[in-house]
Formats: sequence, C-alpha cells, structure tokens
Amino acid sequence: MEQGKKKKCVVHFEPSGLKIEVPSGTVLLEAARKAGIYLSSICGGDGYCGKCKVIVDEGQFQSRPTTLLTPDETRENVVLACQTKVLSDMTITVPKSHALQTSQILMDTDAHRFSTLAGDVAGMFKFDPLVRKLCLQMSPPTVNDHTADHERLYVAIREQIEAPIMQTGFRILQGLSKLLVEANYKVAATIGCRGGTTEVIEVEPGKRCETNFAVAVDLGTTTVVAHLINLTTASTIDTEATYNSQINFGEDYIRRIIYAEENNAFDEMQNRIVNDVNNLIVTLAERQRIDLQDITAIVCAGNTAMVHFLLNLDPTRIRREPYVAAAGFVPPIRAAEAGIQINKRGLLYCLPSVAAYVGSDIVAGVLTTRIYTKKTISLFVDIGTNGEVALGNRDWLVCASSSAGPAFEGSGVKHGMRAGAGAIEKLDFRPDGSVGFKTIGDTHPSGICGSGLLDTLAELFINGIIDRTGRFKPNGDERLTEGDEGLQFQLVPPTNEHHEIVITQADINNLVRSKAGVFAAIRVLMEATQTKPEDLDAIYLAGGFGNFLNIQQAVTIGMLPDIPLEKIQFVGNTSIAGAKTVLLSRKALDTAEKIAKGMTYFDLMSHPGYMDEFIKAGFLPHTDLSLFPSVKAVTHGT
Amino acid sequence: MEQGKKKKCVVHFEPSGLKIEVPSGTVLLEAARKAGIYLSSICGGDGYCGKCKVIVDEGQFQSRPTTLLTPDETRENVVLACQTKVLSDMTITVPKSHALQTSQILMDTDAHRFSTLAGDVAGMFKFDPLVRKLCLQMSPPTVNDHTADHERLYVAIREQIEAPIMQTGFRILQGLSKLLVEANYKVAATIGCRGGTTEVIEVEPGKRCETNFAVAVDLGTTTVVAHLINLTTASTIDTEATYNSQINFGEDYIRRIIYAEENNAFDEMQNRIVNDVNNLIVTLAERQRIDLQDITAIVCAGNTAMVHFLLNLDPTRIRREPYVAAAGFVPPIRAAEAGIQINKRGLLYCLPSVAAYVGSDIVAGVLTTRIYTKKTISLFVDIGTNGEVALGNRDWLVCASSSAGPAFEGSGVKHGMRAGAGAIEKLDFRPDGSVGFKTIGDTHPSGICGSGLLDTLAELFINGIIDRTGRFKPNGDERLTEGDEGLQFQLVPPTNEHHEIVITQADINNLVRSKAGVFAAIRVLMEATQTKPEDLDAIYLAGGFGNFLNIQQAVTIGMLPDIPLEKIQFVGNTSIAGAKTVLLSRKALDTAEKIAKGMTYFDLMSHPGYMDEFIKAGFLPHTDLSLFPSVKAVTHGT
Repeated sequence: MEQGKKKKCVVHFEPSGLKIEVPSGTVLLEAARKAGIYLSSICGGDGYCGKCKVIVDEGQFQSRPTTLLTPDETRENVVLACQTKVLSDMTITVPKSHALQTSQILMDTDAHRFSTLAGDVAGMFKFDPLVRKLCLQMSPPTVNDHTADHERLYVAIREQIEAPIMQTGFRILQGLSKLLVEANYKVAATIGCRGGTTEVIEVEPGKRCETNFAVAVDLGTTTVVAHLINLTTASTIDTEATYNSQINFGEDYIRRIIYAEENNAFDEMQNRIVNDVNNLIVTLAERQRIDLQDITAIVCAGNTAMVHFLLNLDPTRIRREPYVAAAGFVPPIRAAEAGIQINKRGLLYCLPSVAAYVGSDIVAGVLTTRIYTKKTISLFVDIGTNGEVALGNRDWLVCASSSAGPAFEGSGVKHGMRAGAGAIEKLDFRPDGSVGFKTIGDTHPSGICGSGLLDTLAELFINGIIDRTGRFKPNGDERLTEGDEGLQFQLVPPTNEHHEIVITQADINNLVRSKAGVFAAIRVLMEATQTKPEDLDAIYLAGGFGNFLNIQQAVTIGMLPDIPLEKIQFVGNTSIAGAKTVLLSRKALDTAEKIAKGMTYFDLMSHPGYMDEFIKAGFLPHTDLSLFPSVKAVTHGT
Repeated sequence: MEQGKKKKCVVHFEPSGLKIEVPSGTVLLEAARKAGIYLSSICGGDGYCGKCKVIVDEGQFQSRPTTLLTPDETRENVVLACQTKVLSDMTITVPKSHALQTSQILMDTDAHRFSTLAGDVAGMFKFDPLVRKLCLQMSPPTVNDHTADHERLYVAIREQIEAPIMQTGFRILQGLSKLLVEANYKVAATIGCRGGTTEVIEVEPGKRCETNFAVAVDLGTTTVVAHLINLTTASTIDTEATYNSQINFGEDYIRRIIYAEENNAFDEMQNRIVNDVNNLIVTLAERQRIDLQDITAIVCAGNTAMVHFLLNLDPTRIRREPYVAAAGFVPPIRAAEAGIQINKRGLLYCLPSVAAYVGSDIVAGVLTTRIYTKKTISLFVDIGTNGEVALGNRDWLVCASSSAGPAFEGSGVKHGMRAGAGAIEKLDFRPDGSVGFKTIGDTHPSGICGSGLLDTLAELFINGIIDRTGRFKPNGDERLTEGDEGLQFQLVPPTNEHHEIVITQADINNLVRSKAGVFAAIRVLMEATQTKPEDLDAIYLAGGFGNFLNIQQAVTIGMLPDIPLEKIQFVGNTSIAGAKTVLLSRKALDTAEKIAKGMTYFDLMSHPGYMDEFIKAGFLPHTDLSLFPSVKAVTHGT
C-alpha cells in the first residue's frame, strides 16, 4: 500500500490546527515533531511504551501491529504515532493528555521555597555576581594624565572591584576611545568573570548603569525552568518553565543519547534544548519588557548529559563503560556560541558536575542545602529521571546515582503525569476506605504526579491493598479489577467526561523499583562511610514532585531512612536555586567547583554491594523492618 | 579641460606594466595606489615634498602649478603625481628611484647583531614561550578513573607546566572527546598565554608535537621586519622585511593619522599594514615550507600609532593634546580577528607601550639592552621616524620622544634613502679632500642612508665646509654650487648613466634639526634626573641606519653625549629583538609590562626647558662646547 516516495502529504493536527507537508511514508511521530507538536514518548519511538497515541480522523496510513492498543482503540482509529506511516493527506487529533500547558508547571512555589530554604543569598555569599555593570566616572585625560583609554578604564574598574587579571574583547577595545570621548568618560562597563580573568564584555554610555539582567536555568530531562534575575537588585523578577522538547526523542537521557547516535542527531538535540531555553528567555523578557541585549549572563545547572546536549559536547561515552563525560567543568563561553539569544557578548556558565551520572544539579543541591558547611552529617536526595544521592558534611562528601527510572516523574506509570494542572498531588484513604485527593488547580483529575504517586503507594500499603512485595492482595474490593495490563486498582471512577484513574501492578512495580534504587544508593553511601541513621542530622529531598509532598509517606514506602520527621525537609528544585546562587556570587561558583572536585563518586553499577541492597529495598518498606521502626508501628508489621 | 566625471580612463604604469581603470579626474597618486604601485610621498599628497615625481609618456592630464619642478622637468613631462588629475587614458613612467627592492633591507645583520648583543635568550629569560605545544600521553579512562576528558587534559597539561588558571575554546572542547579517543589519548596540545590565563588553543593527534612556529614583527613606520621562529628549538630560522605600504599615505605616522581621519581611511590603513605583515609571513612560510596553520603566535613591537593601525584602534587622539592612546597595553587577541593569516586560533601579542609617542619598540629596546637590570645608568636612543630616548637603571627609568623628523631615515633629504642596495652607508673625506664612500651592495650610489648622512654631516663640519650653525661657508670649492634649492655640495659627480649625489643646505638643516631634537631630549631627561655625562655607563644607539654606523661621528655632530666611545654601542633593531625575547618567554612579557608601567614619560612639547635645549643643540656639536670636549679637540674649536 506504500506509495511513491516523492509524493507529498499534508498532515493537519487538531485541535492545534498546525499542519506540515511531509513526503509519503514519513512516520507520524516525526511529522508531529516537524510541526512543532509535543507527543509523549518514553521509548523514543521504538513502539513499546504506548504513550504516543493519536486518533486518525481522515487519511490513509500504514501501522505496524501492536499489542499496546485495545480492540476498542483500534476501532476508533487510535494509532501509535511512532508506528504509523503517512500515506496521504491526513487529519490527526492529538488527545488532550498530550496537550501540555507549560504555564502550569509549578515554579513559583519553587522560587518561594528556595527563599525560605536558603535565606537571603547575600547572607550566604557576598553579593558579587558573575556578570555586573559598573558605573564608571573617569576623569578625562589631561596633559599631566595621558593614561591610555584602555588602562584608564581598568583603573576605574579596579577602584570598584577586585580584578587582578583583566581582558577586553577586541571589538570593545576598537570602539572604546570614541565611546569614552562621546560619553565624556562616564560609562557603564559590563564585566564578567571568566575563570580567574575579569572580562570587559561591554561598555555603554553611563546612563545605562542600572539595566542588567541574567537568567538562571535548570536543565531538567523533563522540564526546563528559567528564572529572570535583576542583577542590580539581586531579585528574581519572573519565572517560567517549559517541557524539554527533546522528550520526543526519548523520556530519559540515555534513550536520547542512543537516538542522537543512531540518527546523527546531535545538532538537532542541541537545537531542541537551546530553543527551549531561548523560548523561556524570550517569554520572560517580553513579559517584563526587557531588551534581550540587557540580559548579560545565563547560568545553567542540570544533569551531565543535558549540559552536553546544550553545548553539543560528545555525550556518547556517558552511556558506555567507563562512563566518561567530555567535560565536567565547562569553562564560561559566550552564550551566542551555543546559540543562546541574550546579549551577543553575554556569558554562559554551567555549574560543574561530579561524574557522568552525578550532574551539576546535584552540586547545586549540595550548595543550596549547605550540607558542605555543616559539622553534622546530612543526606541530600534528588528524585528526577534518575535518583541522585549525596551524603556528607564539611569534611567529606560522597555521592551516587541510581538509574531506577523516572516513575516518580510520572513516566512508566499508566496515569502518571508531571506536576501540572489536573494532577493529583495529594491522596489519602479516608476512614471509610474511599479515596480522597487534591489536584493541582483543583480541577477534575487527569493523572497523578510524583507526590500523589508517593501517597498512593504508601496508602495502598498501609491499608493492606498491596503486600510488602508490592503485589495486590485479593481482598474482594470491587475497585481491584483485572485490566489490560493485569490487576489494577481504581483510585477515581470514570465520569461521562473523564476517564477513570487507576494504578496498575506494573505501575506499582515501577514505583517500588524507583524507591528501591534510591534507598539502595543511600545505603551504599551510608555503609561506605559508616553512617548510621541516627548520625543523620538532616535529610533534604529535592525534585519536581508537587506542592504537598508528604514526607512521612516517603519514609513509609522505604525511600528515605526512618529518622525523626522534623529532620526531613522537602526542598523542591535545588538545581535552579543553585544556579541562582552561583549567578549572584563569584565565591559561590568557586564553592560549587570545590564541592564538585571534592565529592567522591560511587559507581553503583560496579559496586559489589549495590545489587544486594537494591533487592532488599525492593520490599515495602524493606526486608529489614528494624530499619523502619516507625513504619513497623503504623503497619503493625503487615 | 576637466571632462565628464563618468568617463573611465585606463592608466598604464611603466616599467611594471601594471594598469588600472579610474574615473576621469582621479588624482594620479591615487591611481598608482590603486594599481599597487609605491610612489615616495613624504607629505601625504599635499604637494609640497616633491617626492612623487613621475613622467607622463602619453595622455591628457591637469596639473596644479608647483615650484618643485625645474623647467627642464616640466619640459620632459615630469609631474607630481599628487597634483595631477587623469583626464584620458595615460601611460606613465615611474622613475627608478621609486622602485624599491624589499629584499635588500638589511635584516640579516640585525638578526646577527641581536644575538651578539643579548646573548642567548634562554640565558636572559627561561625558555617559556607565550605559545607552546605540549606532548601529552594520558591514560585512557577506566571504571576506576572516570575523570572527564576535559579535566584529564588539564591534569596532563599541569603535569608539564604551571597553569593555575586555564580556559578552553568552545570549538576545541566540542571536538575534544572524539579526538582523544581516536588518538588513544596521545595528543599535542597547543597552549597560549592570555594574561593570567592559559588557553588551550588547539589539540591535535600526538605525532604533531614538534611542529610549532611563530613570527616576531617590528612594525616600523617605514619598514616592517619579520623573523620566523621555531618555537620548539627557540631558533630564528628566517627573516624578511618589506616597506610599510602605508607610506603612500604619508611618510610619518602623524601624516597618516591625518590622512585616515580626513578620508575615513582607517580600514584601508589597517589593511595596508596587515597585508604587509601577511605578505612577510607567507613569504617566510613558503620559503621554509611551513604550513601557515603551524604558525601559532605573532608578537609585534612598534610605535603606538602603528600598533593602533594594525588593530584598527582609534589613533586620532595620539596627535591631539593631551595625546592619548586608545590602549597602551593591548590584551592578546586571536590573530585572525585582526586579519593576520596564521593558525586560525593563533594569538597576536603586542608589546606594551608607555605613551602616545613612546611605543612598544622603545620598551623592547629597554628590555633587550637590559638597562632596567643595571645598577649603573644607561642611555637608550632609538632613531627612527621620531627620535625616542630612554634613560635609567634598575631603580628608575625615564623616557621622551622628539618629533624632530625622519631625516636620518633618508626622508626630507634630497638624495636621502633607506638602508637598501645602492645607499651610501659610509662616507669620509680623504686627505686630498675627495669624498670616499661605500654603498650597500657595492653598486653605484643612488642615494645616502642614515649612517652615510651621519658621516656626511660630520665630515662637512670637521672639514670646515659648513660652520657650527650648519651653514655652508663660501670657500671656493667648485663642488659647492647654487642648486634649485639654494647652496648644495656635490658628494658624487654624475656619470652618463647616474645622477650626481648632492647634499643641500635644506638637507643639512633637516639633519641638524633631527640631531638637535634627539640631543635636547637626552638633555631634558639627564637634567631632570640630575644625570651627568660621566654618570652614563653605557649608551645604546638603535635604528635602521645601515651596517657601518660610525659612533664617533654621532658624537661629533652632537647627537649623543660625549662619553668614551667604548661605552657607546650601536645595537640595530632592538624592536624586533624585544619582540622575539617576549615571544620566547612569558616572564619577558611580564617584564616588558613592568618596564612600560614603571617608565616615567616626559612630554617634551609641554616641557618648559625643551625648546631652550633644542635651540642650544641646533649647533654643531652644541652651543656649549664644554659638553663635547672630544669634538672640540678634533675641530680645534672651529
């Protein structure tokens, strides 16, 4: 049925109305990508995650057979976009579940949470931003003071800040004399920190002294968050977030590396993330009526792979033994070199990473939670697409990464979703056995985000609906039924307009595997450093769970060590918090580099004890109940 | 007679055969410039130097009246190119006097002189070039050593050299991992010094470790000299020189600044000097069969204006009170940014200057002669288009510049010429009163270069042909005749094939003015520092005079203080020597910067005593004969 390759087909996507012309034979997922439409896809287009379902309203197509569609779905012309080729002009309906509303990502809460966690950055580190604008009022030269313009500028800068080694861009130098004379030696100099060198980035007439902005970015595998900072007042003036549009190429970064390698799509991968960052910056700038030229710095934190994608560094060896990054410490570069649309001479900084699987987001977390300053031992846990763990104090720091999957980000869970509008972020079983919940935006639930999944797993366990291995117990509850993928529990019944919300055995297995990975990593680090639970003075849990993370439930399921709850704190997105801290203080960047250099990385894949710990943590809360006395008390040793 | 502006005229130049099409009305000097032909022109086209004479063989033209042509010349269709407009197709003969042979500039002697003066650079400064190639043999990563590639590279570099602060170019970083894997972690890293930062300029497969070259350049107002250096062995492997092709725009740099300002010709001015430098580099590279990509650094020394022209920095304020440079300390830049054709990531360094009129050539001279290291006081005198003077020891250094004109470079002297083939470089009056001389290349004399002019002035004085004011004495000598420009003395009679060589009263006045300016500058500095002639332990005389500079005659005419001759040394081109020294040692560059910063500049134009000293030095040797006891003895107080 496949027709001539040369034939062009127009594909209309509804309800967006977007259309694209593609050659006959193009895969529908690829057509959607080209049209700029986001379709969920965990597997990167390999046809086994079943996330990229769309409805064909009109047109000819060819689909590979799949077991991921129900007979009903097939009857209703639902197809997997990644397994479907376009053969004629088509009209496609993209189900609402794909229609992400980026404005609903919860970054305001994170911005607030950061301010309560870290206090005033100025109190943590002296306000001394990586890029700053100095008002310089120089005396014009005279016969008795014929110092050259360039040296005169340096003298004036050094009167205000410490800058033993300085450098000036050639184009700046070429225009300097004319500018100084025209401005009668009253100018605003934008200077940036590049390693130990202070670079004169721009010189403008004096009246523009106060206008200086920067952007801090968290490069998440799933979500990219940007905060716009006023560098004169050190205040966050706006925040915005978007989904990482690399998601089309796979929901975890290993998948994306493989995709890029197989399709030589490194440039495309860079374009995606750079466009995401640019879109955020433009959105923030337009909303705040700021000229992009007045944004002179961008600081990024993220996992090692994401930083590699952003800069188009070779990420392929991250996924192969011995798991080597191209660079952990990326020198500051001109943002324009990476395609970032801020001031054309503005600088791009990336926080340093520790290893291929412990990125600068973790360094940012350690920096923000200040565990590197404390005499007592703290544990930092960041649940994202991977689960990363850092442990230590002011004398030592160890870290590890467990690749146990992104279940708590809502991936690999049937009704899992990110912490956006309609997500169940809080859930409990009422005394009568019914399920109570709260959604983000208080709308009808369309899925469950990380904090809701944590609650769900804990409540199913506490209420005896699943056993300690995470298996559903046959109990006669009519909400427990046999679904397409085995047993499933109905959390929210369907209505005429909305589908039901269920949790399946496969979902629970994924969630247990994730928490087991995190806890095993914690155990390995604690064992290696002979740290006992009672030695832990604080646990900081970071990640994009949602607003109402129930710390108790994180202990109940055995994700975190069982220590007094008041010692455990949910700290939200510490990656962006760290990026902001570094942006506002040269000292903080130095500190981040010291943290990254000083942290000992444990490679769990080659660690002899890890698999054992992982298996033991594959129970709720753990095989060894003595590790979870508080849980034992609640569940009566179920 | 001027015709329609639109008409195009073709101008043929003989004997070169070059031709150019220009609009009717174009000035002939401009047409020659466009055709790529060098015509002498001191005044920059203002019609008063009379140097740009050419012969019109055919065609219509319009010339402004001038007194600089003899009736005979006018009859023979000789015109001043700068005062003549093209009105039709023309054929022009360019006289031989314009036909410069660049290969005859004496740079080999300078190269040799430098080696005898400064000794082994490695003895003066540790061999530690600004740009170097390091052979790096790294261990490939393992599970137990997963250091990222970029950090691995830094560790390997730091095992070989001190580099506390490092930076890597973004493009290098992007290609690093692939290269390291392919080269099995055996690479050659080219690293360059940029202020306090060590930059990784290039990384290549390991086999190219030994191939690394650089160029040292003296940016003279008249002559540009380049030495090709092997950075692995620190040896000079070839030298080349060319005339500065900005000369068409005026023979001194003030004229050129004015020309550039009036004609908005800053880009053109930069193109000229950059092309000169590129031509030298290409010539050297081709002759030595070196790939331009293997030349990774260029170090330039020159007067402040010339460095400004090279980099297209604003030079206009150099010529206006309070005489300010755009930059005295130019940061290292990528050579390609200035249009220099070496390795596209290679670095361009300029030695620092002291002030608008004391350039990096003088800093290079102080560095090379090592007067900044000595306990005793030395005097450094550089005679070029201006005469610059530095005085001091290891504790203090002062300097000044006299703008007394380029007479000793052969400009402003009827038969003056640069130190090239056919130039009289040595001259004396024999006992029988006849004139003996030696020319460069031992050919028939076509003019007199600096050392010959020095001899001429001294011999005319010693032999009583001119008096102490420099005026010809009527003495009945038939060689003293009335020429077009007043009295003149015939040094070499004409032959059938060659014109006579004379020295005119105007020539002598120019020479005396030049030497007076230099000596007055010396006196101002010595007075200001209370240095007496007997305090001077050494005088170093630098400049492009010729090979046989007679030091005694420099004292006889009162250019240099009268101290024992063995304390006076002719040191040739110290500008290029300094550029080479800096190229081969980071410490030398630091030292040059310290010298430039530490030197006190005396602005003679605003100095109250200068004019008085200048008038007193306008005699041969001086009004105060007690300052020149040895001269008084020779001339019997004439």
